[in-house]
Amino acid sequence: MSETPDNAVRTYIQQHRAAFLDDLAEWLRIPSVSAQPEHDGDVRRSAEWLAAKLSETGFPVAEIWPTPGAPAVFAEWPSGDPDAPTVLVYGHHDVQPAAREDGWHTDPFEPRITDGRMYGRGAADDKGQVFFHTLGVRAHLAATGRTAPAVNLKLLIEGEEESGSPHFRALVEQQAHRLAADAVIVSDTGMWSETTPTVCTGMRGLADCEITLYGPDQDIHSGSFGGAVPNPATVAARLVAALHDEDEQVTIPGFYEGVAPLTDEERELYAELPFDEETWLRTAKSHGTLGEAGYSTLERLWARPTAELNGIGGGYQGPGGKTIIPSSAQLKLSFRLVAGQEPDKIERAVTDWVAARIPAGIRHEIVFGAATRPCLTPLDHPALQSVVRAMGRAFDGHKIRFTREGGSGPAADLQDVLAAPVLFLGISVPSDGWHAPNEKVELELLLKGVETTAHLWDDMARTLR
Amino acid sequence: MSETPDNAVRTYIQQHRAAFLDDLAEWLRIPSVSAQPEHDGDVRRSAEWLAAKLSETGFPVAEIWPTPGAPAVFAEWPSGDPDAPTVLVYGHHDVQPAAREDGWHTDPFEPRITDGRMYGRGAADDKGQVFFHTLGVRAHLAATGRTAPAVNLKLLIEGEEESGSPHFRALVEQQAHRLAADAVIVSDTGMWSETTPTVCTGMRGLADCEITLYGPDQDIHSGSFGGAVPNPATVAARLVAALHDEDEQVTIPGFYEGVAPLTDEERELYAELPFDEETWLRTAKSHGTLGEAGYSTLERLWARPTAELNGIGGGYQGPGGKTIIPSSAQLKLSFRLVAGQEPDKIERAVTDWVAARIPAGIRHEIVFGAATRPCLTPLDHPALQSVVRAMGRAFDGHKIRFTREGGSGPAADLQDVLAAPVLFLGISVPSDGWHAPNEKVELELLLKGVETTAHLWDDMARTLR
Repeated sequence: MSETPDNAVRTYIQQHRAAFLDDLAEWLRIPSVSAQPEHDGDVRRSAEWLAAKLSETGFPVAEIWPTPGAPAVFAEWPSGDPDAPTVLVYGHHDVQPAAREDGWHTDPFEPRITDGRMYGRGAADDKGQVFFHTLGVRAHLAATGRTAPAVNLKLLIEGEEESGSPHFRALVEQQAHRLAADAVIVSDTGMWSETTPTVCTGMRGLADCEITLYGPDQDIHSGSFGGAVPNPATVAARLVAALHDEDEQVTIPGFYEGVAPLTDEERELYAELPFDEETWLRTAKSHGTLGEAGYSTLERLWARPTAELNGIGGGYQGPGGKTIIPSSAQLKLSFRLVAGQEPDKIERAVTDWVAARIPAGIRHEIVFGAATRPCLTPLDHPALQSVVRAMGRAFDGHKIRFTREGGSGPAADLQDVLAAPVLFLGISVPSDGWHAPNEKVELELLLKGVETTAHLWDDMARTLR
Repeated sequence: MSETPDNAVRTYIQQHRAAFLDDLAEWLRIPSVSAQPEHDGDVRRSAEWLAAKLSETGFPVAEIWPTPGAPAVFAEWPSGDPDAPTVLVYGHHDVQPAAREDGWHTDPFEPRITDGRMYGRGAADDKGQVFFHTLGVRAHLAATGRTAPAVNLKLLIEGEEESGSPHFRALVEQQAHRLAADAVIVSDTGMWSETTPTVCTGMRGLADCEITLYGPDQDIHSGSFGGAVPNPATVAARLVAALHDEDEQVTIPGFYEGVAPLTDEERELYAELPFDEETWLRTAKSHGTLGEAGYSTLERLWARPTAELNGIGGGYQGPGGKTIIPSSAQLKLSFRLVAGQEPDKIERAVTDWVAARIPAGIRHEIVFGAATRPCLTPLDHPALQSVVRAMGRAFDGHKIRFTREGGSGPAADLQDVLAAPVLFLGISVPSDGWHAPNEKVELELLLKGVETTAHLWDDMARTLR
């Protein structure tokens, strides 16, 4: 029935498993920490290593793309079929900082395999998940007897994701013609758990701003002047308090305009996930839930926009008291956005809302950072269905469920610039310890990633044709 | 008509004016900065200088009273008349820090006389205003032919006022029997202006607290968790915003309980003062007024209690953005209190109000600092009328008007511990530059202070008998 017999794929993977893991371990040994300047050379070395490995894998094109920061790697393997759709895989080869003294049981850059897991910085985030594409495409060719993939396969593996992807958008814009694709596969997320395979269907967007409020020209005495002049820190606090109503809904007019409502299907599917609030609170290191009335925790995290206070400061913050009216105060707000919300419109709405709430005698400034748009692929999107089918085969017919990501990422830049749907294919699980000591990847799941991509290109070639 | 003929007093003052100013200048040369440990020796020297000067003035008792911090000076000159009332004068001999580079035109500790003003740190706050009592009592004796004052005169001149009077309350409690008085005269305030002589009738009290709010065990990712858990910085802001209603009235239940209302007479008298909002805003370095509905700016400052945010901090306050939910936040609030409010009751009301507003998942701590009670002398108090009469004679029959102080001070400790009414006698004016560079005292007003006290003791002896 399928063009890539499952047994052939599995056999091929088993035969090449050892070399695959050896190669991944070699890559993990390169401490490509983009946030630490002393590792700039390692990040470059990581890019070179990957480009060479992709050439070796068979990609006819494998290039280092410099940026003003760390280099990205681009590779391309044309299908040869003029009707074949084009798929772009996104990942990153830089990693979070790691040091033995942070609590690692062994050297974070000397990978080791124990109990079916490979430990090492980048094992899951994101080198392991980039790397399963190399064996995946080979297994696809081996099982189908093809000499080139069923889709025009492109890879863009950036080197600055752990530093906030400062040059990614510009790179994608500059190289838009070479990156053009019918679909984008992002392999930089995860699944619900080891026993609940899932596909992520979207990420929230992000707009953020800093608001500075100016009152008296200097801190003034709260005895001599208190009760008669506006206090900029109080105004800051009042802005924050006014952001939400008693249902924890954001009060800014127009904020929810266009928000894609959760479908009944999505709500049912999310409700079916084995969500345990106590476990989740431990992950969140929090001691209670609080959110928009009428939505579950998962719905709040995945499908609802937020207004969050990331920082506030004004007046005296040292030990003891100081009887002043502060001369200024500052707020940092961020807004997670969901499908249907446009950062530009949100920024205008926030700007107007803030301006309307500043009393006489207080001056304010508002500055927005670079925004990230939300992305969401509908459950019935053909490319998404293709990912679900391929994953289902890798997971022995296990039902594939759906999640979303509450965070925001460069995936949205690809979606926007390339005007292509973004799909998420990740096999990492919450216990993998992203950004934490003793990061690991489950080898069985890593190979399920290989297997999924081995099935995926054929399926997508048919689906997107 | 008066027992101390005005001419005799003026003649005496003119005769001794030069020596008086020389002595004050000598005292101002001692940099008795209580907040700077390197000046500890100077603060002690200042106390010794003053005690010696008071002995020389004629006080039979002039003692240095040590504290765990800087020493105070106590002096006593019994009237000899067993029926004479006892008056305690309060002031301080320590000064604010001052350095040439802060903007002083000349050395702050090398006083100079120019255009009828003496410039130097402490000229007005408070050495000048302590010192007019020395020539004042001598003029009183000279004009009346007495050998001891008409009242039992006591002076308590503390050495830590500019450092928040940390040991003052304990000192007053320990020495309550020696400080016992029928009235307290505080000479550490000022008048409305050079052309509008006034008597201050009260100060606001003060209660302050620090509230810390704890949410997640560490800063958590606002993408992964935002919208579903409580944010302690948001809770902090909501507390601040909830402190006042739309009329800028404090919402804490019981907050206004017992507050002495402004009398019609007070409101009329305050309204008569030549208050210019633009000038006042320049003094306040502010750009607008805001306060409790139904009250003028002066009424808000002098006669109404406040809840003020002195500082707030939580989450990321560095440059740019950081997408976190902070793990904690902190507020510093202070409450100015007016006659009729009890700090203890206010602290309980605040504690209960805060506790009731903390959502599940947030833990909080609240810590109060040492409170200061408000003090207020009614306009018809006999001792106050005595001060007004004495001042009226010094100011050539000029109408003496009334003010209050928005700030809080150790005067309240004297009122509480000694159970005596507190009266304020000060001749400083707003342009004197307290705590600022180029502090000065107007010589003409300084001598009006001398003259007022020269008339005062007789008047009080009769009034309080």
